[in-house]
Amino acid sequence: MARVSQEHLDARRRQILDGATRCFARNGFHATSMQDVLAEAGLSAGAVYRYFRSKDELIAAIAEETFTRIRGAFAQAAGENPPPTPDVLIGRVMTIVLERRIAGAEQQAFARLIIQVWAETLRDEALAKALAQGFDGMREIWAGLVDAYRANGLVPADVSSEHMARTLIAAVQGFIAQQALFGDVEIDVLQEGLRGLMSMGAPAPPPPVR
Amino acid sequence: MARVSQEHLDARRRQILDGATRCFARNGFHATSMQDVLAEAGLSAGAVYRYFRSKDELIAAIAEETFTRIRGAFAQAAGENPPPTPDVLIGRVMTIVLERRIAGAEQQAFARLIIQVWAETLRDEALAKALAQGFDGMREIWAGLVDAYRANGLVPADVSSEHMARTLIAAVQGFIAQQALFGDVEIDVLQEGLRGLMSMGAPAPPPPVR
Repeated sequence: MARVSQEHLDARRRQILDGATRCFARNGFHATSMQDVLAEAGLSAGAVYRYFRSKDELIAAIAEETFTRIRGAFAQAAGENPPPTPDVLIGRVMTIVLERRIAGAEQQAFARLIIQVWAETLRDEALAKALAQGFDGMREIWAGLVDAYRANGLVPADVSSEHMARTLIAAVQGFIAQQALFGDVEIDVLQEGLRGLMSMGAPAPPPPVR
Repeated sequence: MARVSQEHLDARRRQILDGATRCFARNGFHATSMQDVLAEAGLSAGAVYRYFRSKDELIAAIAEETFTRIRGAFAQAAGENPPPTPDVLIGRVMTIVLERRIAGAEQQAFARLIIQVWAETLRDEALAKALAQGFDGMREIWAGLVDAYRANGLVPADVSSEHMARTLIAAVQGFIAQQALFGDVEIDVLQEGLRGLMSMGAPAPPPPVR
């Protein structure tokens, strides 16, 4: 039997994940079968099941791949002094999401897939747990960055790094939602909007809502 | 035949929408049938179909109701001078989302329903269009508010109101996603995080990404 190179294995894995992403983004998880994924990837069941045994494994692999790429952007940011401001770093993270083009799919396919994953956590506890872990990791990384902002005099002492991290992640999640829903997110625009918000200055804390 | 009071009609409509919201939030749109909604609301088909003829009509009514309540918060804000800062107003909007408790459903049920609606736009063009219109309306309202911020010297001249509106909406959408996914959004925390971001000051525009 012919030996198969690592490049071949990686390319095959890529082909399957791209096919699955196209199917999921187009029809959602529920309306997609493993059979659809095989057809979309142009591969036999044997070829696919060697890599992924179920839709759940495909979804988990796609989610993990995305977290890994975004973590890469943060790892790079951690090496910069002064740290990149939120408008710069959120611009980089969103570039990763927007650039995740899948051949033969619409430009917003990947953002749509992320929204599908969010909706899917409602019914899939393992996926919900994986996402919660990924979120905790992001929160920790952003909180470390806020500490660096503070050390550079960019953030006041009385704002919790953890709380500000949640707001920064919310901005990313919101831009992903806008890209999924409307497909018109532009990096320059979101960066300008963030700079506008950053320039408002800290108002005195208001009385509690209600 | 007995005449039915408007209060009775409104209460019945409320009962149906709450039952549908519970079903959708629990099982998603696809796994929910009109039969499930009838059972959940404890009503006969005749009683329900008098108000809503399909799941699509139920979803549209729930979405419209939410937009109406949020627009109410903005209408109030428009009457205030100086206008409430983003941390205050986003706090109010999120309070509306978090307080939309449905009897017998988890606390994050309503946020989960919103995520379901986002995911559903993928396959439902009428819903996608309704959401795009709602989003346009929100963008216009927020842009007017940014104009008021600018008139009060809170936002620099060179930031587009339209662009900043998108960022403010992204923050709301992101907090909704966090509530849907993790159910732990607290108004105080998101307001503190927003104030932290607002206090960072406007950095010089960075060179284009890449």
